[in-house]
Order: sequence, then C-alpha cells, then structure tokens
Amino acid sequence: MVPVSKKPRSSHLAPRARRASASTELPVIAITIGDPAGIGPEIALRAGVDRAVLKLCKPVLIGSRALLARVARTLKLRVPKDVFDPTSEFAAADVTPGTVQAANGAAAARWVDAAIAGCRDGRFAAMVTCPLNKEALAAGGVPFPGHTELLAHRCGVSGEIMLMYDRKIAVALVTVHQAYTSVPGSLSVERIVHTGELLAQALRRLRKGEPRIAVLGLNPHAGEHGLFGNEESRFVVPAVEELRRRGVLCDGPLPPDTAFAPMNRKKYAGHVCLYHDQGLIPFKALAFDDGVNVTLGLPIVRTSVDHGTAFDIAWQGKATHRSLVSALMLAVTLST
Amino acid sequence: MVPVSKKPRSSHLAPRARRASASTELPVIAITIGDPAGIGPEIALRAGVDRAVLKLCKPVLIGSRALLARVARTLKLRVPKDVFDPTSEFAAADVTPGTVQAANGAAAARWVDAAIAGCRDGRFAAMVTCPLNKEALAAGGVPFPGHTELLAHRCGVSGEIMLMYDRKIAVALVTVHQAYTSVPGSLSVERIVHTGELLAQALRRLRKGEPRIAVLGLNPHAGEHGLFGNEESRFVVPAVEELRRRGVLCDGPLPPDTAFAPMNRKKYAGHVCLYHDQGLIPFKALAFDDGVNVTLGLPIVRTSVDHGTAFDIAWQGKATHRSLVSALMLAVTLST
Repeated sequence: MVPVSKKPRSSHLAPRARRASASTELPVIAITIGDPAGIGPEIALRAGVDRAVLKLCKPVLIGSRALLARVARTLKLRVPKDVFDPTSEFAAADVTPGTVQAANGAAAARWVDAAIAGCRDGRFAAMVTCPLNKEALAAGGVPFPGHTELLAHRCGVSGEIMLMYDRKIAVALVTVHQAYTSVPGSLSVERIVHTGELLAQALRRLRKGEPRIAVLGLNPHAGEHGLFGNEESRFVVPAVEELRRRGVLCDGPLPPDTAFAPMNRKKYAGHVCLYHDQGLIPFKALAFDDGVNVTLGLPIVRTSVDHGTAFDIAWQGKATHRSLVSALMLAVTLST
Repeated sequence: MVPVSKKPRSSHLAPRARRASASTELPVIAITIGDPAGIGPEIALRAGVDRAVLKLCKPVLIGSRALLARVARTLKLRVPKDVFDPTSEFAAADVTPGTVQAANGAAAARWVDAAIAGCRDGRFAAMVTCPLNKEALAAGGVPFPGHTELLAHRCGVSGEIMLMYDRKIAVALVTVHQAYTSVPGSLSVERIVHTGELLAQALRRLRKGEPRIAVLGLNPHAGEHGLFGNEESRFVVPAVEELRRRGVLCDGPLPPDTAFAPMNRKKYAGHVCLYHDQGLIPFKALAFDDGVNVTLGLPIVRTSVDHGTAFDIAWQGKATHRSLVSALMLAVTLST
C-alpha cells in the first residue's frame, strides 16, 4: 500500500479526488507510453514512481517492458512495478530514439488499444496518454492520425470534444484540426451546444460551484452587431439560449479579443472556442507547461499531455514529466 | 521648467527617450480628450498633471476648456495649464456622461483634426488619443468610423498599420476590422511584407538591438505542411523571404498556437499577425492594462490608449489613466 497524504499538493484537485486519495482503494490509471522513439517512455517512467502520483492513484504503464527497461538503463531510472505489456514480441533493441519507425507506430497504437479495452471493462478508472507520432502511425499501418480518432472509433462514438485544461484557463473547441477557411461551414448551433454542455459537465467536476461558461464570437468584436460577419447571430446567440434552457450558466457571444483578459478569466470557469487557434493561442500563452488535454464525450476518461513526442530531446534525460503528472491528477479527479 | 529626472520610471523607454528627458527641451505631445461623454476627459486631466509624464514631455490637452473644467469640478481634479481648445462654442453643459450625442462626436473629431494639424506643422512632436465613440461620430456627421481612418485620410496615406505594443508583447496586424471569412481574400505577400517592415522599423526604436520578428501562419499548426490550408505557402513563405532580403531578421510561418508561448515571446521582439484576434487575443490576455495602440505608416507619430470610452464608468472617478501614460511615454520614445 502506498502512503496516503491528507494534503495532496496539486491544486488541480477538486474535493472528489481528495476523497479518493484518502480512501484505501486508489484508482488504477493506465499510462500509455506513446511513441517509443519520443520522450513518452522517459516521462512515463518518471511519473510511474513519482511520489505525488503514487499518493493519488495506482499507475499502470502500458507499453513494451523491454523498451522501458532499455530507456531506464540509459537514463538510470527505475522501472515501476506495474507494467502491462501486450506486445512482448516488440523488438526494443531496434528502436532508434528521435526517428520515425513503422514498428513503433504499430506498437504504440496497440498500447492505446489495450488501455481503451481496460477502461471499458473496468480494470482502469481512466487512461492517460503520452504523445504519438503521426507519421509513425501511418508507416505502421494504423488508419488513424492520432489518439482522438482512434479513441472515438474504438468507443463507437462521434462528437468527441477537445478540452484544454489548466487551473487558470479551460478551453473547449468546437472545431479542431481544419483549415481556417473551412471553420464557418463547420459551425452549427448543435455543435456549439454540445461543446458547451460537455464543458459545463467537466467543469462541475473540476471546479468549485456551478461553473459559468463563455461562448466566443467568430468575428472581431463578435461582429460588432452584424457590421462584419453574422455567425454570431446565426450560431452563437441561439446556442447560448439553448444552453441556458438546459441549465448551463452561459454568456455569449463574447468579443474574442477580450474574452481572455484577466477579468473574464476570473468571471468564466471555461470558454467555448469556435476554432483551434482561438482557444489554443491564449491557452499556450498562459498555461504552456501545465496544460492537460482532455477528450470529452467518450464513455471513458482520457487525459493527455499537452506536448508532442519531442524527438529532438528523446531519451536524453531532458524531458519534464510535469504535464504528465498534471494529466494524471486530472484523470483521477475526473474518474473518481 | 518641469523637474527632470535622470531615471524615468517607465521601462517602455528606449535610450533615445531618456536622452530627450534629460535635455532642456521636452517634446510637446498633444493629447486629444476623446468623446466628451466617455472616460477620455477624466484620464486626460489626470495624465496632464501626472509627474511621471511631466518629467518626459510637455503635454497639451486638446478639447473643450469648458468641458474639462466641468469634469475637473465634478471629480475634484486640477486642469493642466496647457489646453488648446479649437471649439470654444462647444456647449459643455449639454454633455450627459455615458451617452451618445451628435455634438460630442462632431467636436471630438475636430480635436483630432487639430492635433493632426499641429503634428504636421511641427507644433507637436506626437499625438496621443483618448477613445472616440463610433455612433457619436456618425451622429455628428463625421464620415469616418474611428481615428485610424480619419488619420489616414487627413495625412493622405493608405496602408497604415495597427501595432499593439507592450513591453511583454508587440503585435502588428495585417488585417483589422473585417469579417473572419474575408481575411484570406485580403492577404497578400505585399501586405505582409509592408506590415513586417513597419513593425521592424518601430521595434528598432522601441527595443534594444536589431529586433527579430515572427510572421504567423493562418491555419492551425501553420497548415501542417499543406494538410489543411495553403495560405502559408502562398503568402507567408514568400513574404518572409522578401523581408529577409530587405534586411529584417524574420521567421515564419509560425504555428499560431505556440507563437505566444513563453519561449517564443522571449525569442521574438514582435509578431506579424494575419488577423485581428490572432494578435489581440494574446495581447489582451497578457497585457490588458498597459497596452498601447500605435498607428504605423503615418507621416506623424500617433499612439492611443488600449481601451474604449467606457461609458458605464464615465465621470465617476473610477477610470485609470495607466494606459494613457503608457501611450504618452511610447509617443515620446517614438518621436524623439
């Protein structure tokens, strides 16, 4: 049994998680180690033995045991006791850190699959993912560009939503990886309402009290009463009305430029952003190191680090596991 | 003669301004008081007697003397000695704070005109503007929606560029007040090059050393090598090449979401942003109270506060003149 602290250090934690940490049964959280040639294995090794983590959950690393042993030897790290390896045939000696390798992409996807299966059958309370490499996935014959698509497919859902979360700022995105010009055609009242509802649901677990959320406009100054652009009156105004009918405390359309000014960050627990950069520019400006990526709208709890594979510093002992710890703590809060 | 400090407190100031402050001739800076029913008159009164301001320049308030006296009486403020009033017939007693009035719009435009004329004939080294009200301008028969258009027309130029400046972040905008959907059609290599050149020129006066600037992409992840959107290869790549040919230290296209992360704010003295919210979302998140709006590409130096008329708190003694002081100090640096 790991020691249990009554005062967990992370301020990410809502009352629910504190109760979980004080119980005798800590939640079991799967950590997929991500692309073997990136920084994933290293940060997973560090997080798996991190005392702050062990106070709050029982982490299980999902990945190649041989690879983890190799990375641990290289960096003089300890391998945590709980490792689940569904790929015992994986040739860990063939991995070249910092490179795209087909076998790595294929294996990394299998580890994610194992975590999803474990979450769905109740062995894991949640899963936390280290970064994948899109090119390695493609080379390995994986028909998905990343976690989100893979998760949605395996869970048989659509309409999953990306939430970027930090104590200081939380943004949920109505559209994500698509061209600037294609955004207006992808907006609808339904999508905005769906995003707002999932954001409010998540914030009820993550923040104190009933959260108030903001929905941003698309145009400068939210279109200045229709002077430039009308997406605010077509999509945002009816979406805000519908969200209110559904019991969500909600304002909008907010002028995007002031939506993240200090007073509005204080006023709103979270923001619904209509496109990727509208949410991620302020998020990364304000919360670069601590951000957690949460997939909302899945039947399981999944959080992720807020960074990529960082091939340039892989296996060099330079990577910080700070974002992974934040992601783990958030997974605990959301799943317990 | 006002006292001269050898250690001005503002960190906005480059060496040039420090020299000016230590000389016997302080630059004369015009302050237009903006819409009479807004917070402009109040903050102008405060700035006009602010000791930090008086150490660096000789401010001249441009507006109705009777109105300034009325606001000063209401708020128990002092009227600075240098006031220029080209509208002695203005009925100050008719002004109702916090309301749109045709006479106010018409007068406010005349004050701006007087400042422009004074800058052009050399009486003023620069002009600093308090906020106008767009509806009052229209009601008063002024055929311009705001300062920028009025300035460009009176100075006979086009291609003026909006720079938002703060010690921590400086953004120059290629497009400003137009619908989201119209932005891609307004982009061109020439406009981006023009914006980058003016930004680099301004930063050479405002920051130490040769500035390095960043040009952002339009699409998420700067289009991820053409996967979504091609504006990066069509416009940004050739613009960055041309800027380099012209001797500007310049990188781009930068992925917008990480362009304002701490490491990139440190690396780049300024950012060229392709649309309003791409630049103003991070600017207002990081520099809400201290921002200065600078119009580049004019034959005169003009800076402005970074806020509106704030009708809701007009004449109540609640407005801070902090942004106006920043704007004044920046005007001194840019004009001396």
